[in-house]
Amino acid sequence: MDSQAVTLYAQILAGGTGTRLWPYSRRAHPKQLLALVGRSTMLQATVARLAPLIPPANVFVLTNAEYIAEVRRQLPEVPPDQVIGEPEALGTAPAAGLGAALIRARAPDATLFMLPADHVIGPATAFQAALAQAARVAADGWLVTFGIRPTEPETGYGYVELGARLGSDAAAYRVARFVEKPDQATAEQYLAAGRFLWNSGMFAWTVESICRAMANHLPDLAARMTEISTLAATGSGTAAPGFAEGMRAIWSRVTDRTTIDYGIMEQSDLVACVPATFQWNDVGSWAALGDVLDADEAGNVIVGDHVGHATAHSLVFARGGRLVVTLGVDDLIVVDTPDAVLVCRREVAQDVRQIVEALSQQDRGTLL
Amino acid sequence: MDSQAVTLYAQILAGGTGTRLWPYSRRAHPKQLLALVGRSTMLQATVARLAPLIPPANVFVLTNAEYIAEVRRQLPEVPPDQVIGEPEALGTAPAAGLGAALIRARAPDATLFMLPADHVIGPATAFQAALAQAARVAADGWLVTFGIRPTEPETGYGYVELGARLGSDAAAYRVARFVEKPDQATAEQYLAAGRFLWNSGMFAWTVESICRAMANHLPDLAARMTEISTLAATGSGTAAPGFAEGMRAIWSRVTDRTTIDYGIMEQSDLVACVPATFQWNDVGSWAALGDVLDADEAGNVIVGDHVGHATAHSLVFARGGRLVVTLGVDDLIVVDTPDAVLVCRREVAQDVRQIVEALSQQDRGTLL
Repeated sequence: MDSQAVTLYAQILAGGTGTRLWPYSRRAHPKQLLALVGRSTMLQATVARLAPLIPPANVFVLTNAEYIAEVRRQLPEVPPDQVIGEPEALGTAPAAGLGAALIRARAPDATLFMLPADHVIGPATAFQAALAQAARVAADGWLVTFGIRPTEPETGYGYVELGARLGSDAAAYRVARFVEKPDQATAEQYLAAGRFLWNSGMFAWTVESICRAMANHLPDLAARMTEISTLAATGSGTAAPGFAEGMRAIWSRVTDRTTIDYGIMEQSDLVACVPATFQWNDVGSWAALGDVLDADEAGNVIVGDHVGHATAHSLVFARGGRLVVTLGVDDLIVVDTPDAVLVCRREVAQDVRQIVEALSQQDRGTLL
Repeated sequence: MDSQAVTLYAQILAGGTGTRLWPYSRRAHPKQLLALVGRSTMLQATVARLAPLIPPANVFVLTNAEYIAEVRRQLPEVPPDQVIGEPEALGTAPAAGLGAALIRARAPDATLFMLPADHVIGPATAFQAALAQAARVAADGWLVTFGIRPTEPETGYGYVELGARLGSDAAAYRVARFVEKPDQATAEQYLAAGRFLWNSGMFAWTVESICRAMANHLPDLAARMTEISTLAATGSGTAAPGFAEGMRAIWSRVTDRTTIDYGIMEQSDLVACVPATFQWNDVGSWAALGDVLDADEAGNVIVGDHVGHATAHSLVFARGGRLVVTLGVDDLIVVDTPDAVLVCRREVAQDVRQIVEALSQQDRGTLL
């Protein structure tokens, strides 16, 4: 079928606090709301990247309640009542249900994409082609996940094992199975095997498919979502004064607090994978950010005011208004902000979240 | 003879801009005027360390003209007219001549010590014993240098080769020769040989001896110093309104712009060395500062607000009012100040001066 024949919607997941990009990312201004790459924030780039296929009028953004105002400020083209605060983060399964419920109230025949707001993706045209491809597969009833060809034996991601090619399409596969984050040896086997892709956290499905899957596998959640859908279809919908309060009441009764992968994708037989034909990086650490920004001839990625001697393969991210000087360092990450400086060996960039935990335990709230 | 029988004076050399401790040390507030170790500035500690032997009334401080006000502020116990600004830094020979000239105008029979203001020395009692020892040797007409037992094959210092023990004293030696900064192999030989000491830049001599040596080896400088001595002995001395201007005129005619080592010590036959029985560090780099401050069990020296994971043998000097976080780093120096952050491998700490030169060439005056 022709993807142009169906209405496409997107639900952007813009919650999360991005602790691994501390100290630049903070609770009050997390990763997805920051301009880490270029001048747009990651959220703005996410919405702009969809525009040729999905106009802002068809975009819903789910975020933490405290970020609603900032999200609306960053996305003036998205109708304000489509920026929804989850009363509490309950996992990606309830988020998927909420998005589907809201869009069902508007366009029950829609195909929708669930996309994180904090991934770096390009080129946009390749991404849009993959979206169109996934929409075609989704139209046949499949729950579609986007798989990323691994470039290294990453142990921080879940994997998707590709099964048989879908008869209807040369660039889509059944999913043989999902695998949780593997150990190093397993990850190396996956990389060598070639048929294991990273589970990107990006999905496509029709409203009908996801609602049916939810009714089958998470019936309690499905019941709650029907309530929300009804709430959103009444009065002035999500813009109504009572919507937030009504949703909060329903949300508090959600018991399926799980991920979409575990709750639906790993349970369903109707799961397909579209391998990504675009570049993808989830910027899950400062090291990952270094990978997506342009490096100079010494392999350094420099943002801000920096003087370096004998400095190589390092990332300097200086937005504290200060000069950062590096001397005789390799594979180092230096992040300067107005109230905190991080100096971290690239290899352990993931451990920044431990620092944030330590600061939290030390009750140093102003730094979180 | 009894050292108590002679009047002891000190001239403290408090010029210099301390570029190797950038970014904490700046032109406007250089190393010797900073509290790098403990709560006193290095200059204050230098004067306090002398007090039992040499009262502040007998202390002269030579400094850059622009530091005079700050030196007087830091040393309220030193008579203000004994804080003298050199119109221009011409080397340690003119500085030695100036100190001797000023003290000669006051106490021609004095023994005086010429001591840098930016060394870390302790314990004070051992230092004072060495001063008394040097005063006894100086009283016999020797120009005395303090030698430091090398602990490593340092190539950044000059060396003193000890000759025969002075018959009059078990703890003083003739100097066989002075050696300029050696190469690594030579420095290692010196360390193994045991009779080579670091030339500390601290000296003792009588006014009479240094003036005679200067007349012999730097006669032109000696003539200028006589003029200054005469100027200081007239009217209200160094406090007179015309003194600074008169000295400036004389100073501009000084042609022996050299070091005391090269101009006098290496030329004279009357040179002795008193080996130090105290701990000494010239804090010539951030690495050296790390050596004099107390380290924790991981070998880290921490000043300021710091959280570290997997951090060892590192120096964090955080006086910028920010939190410094280190993660997975060894042998690193991190210095945080309000407008600049330095991240430097310990091994190349000496090269910080190159950064300062680069900033100077880039005309970034506010950071110097």
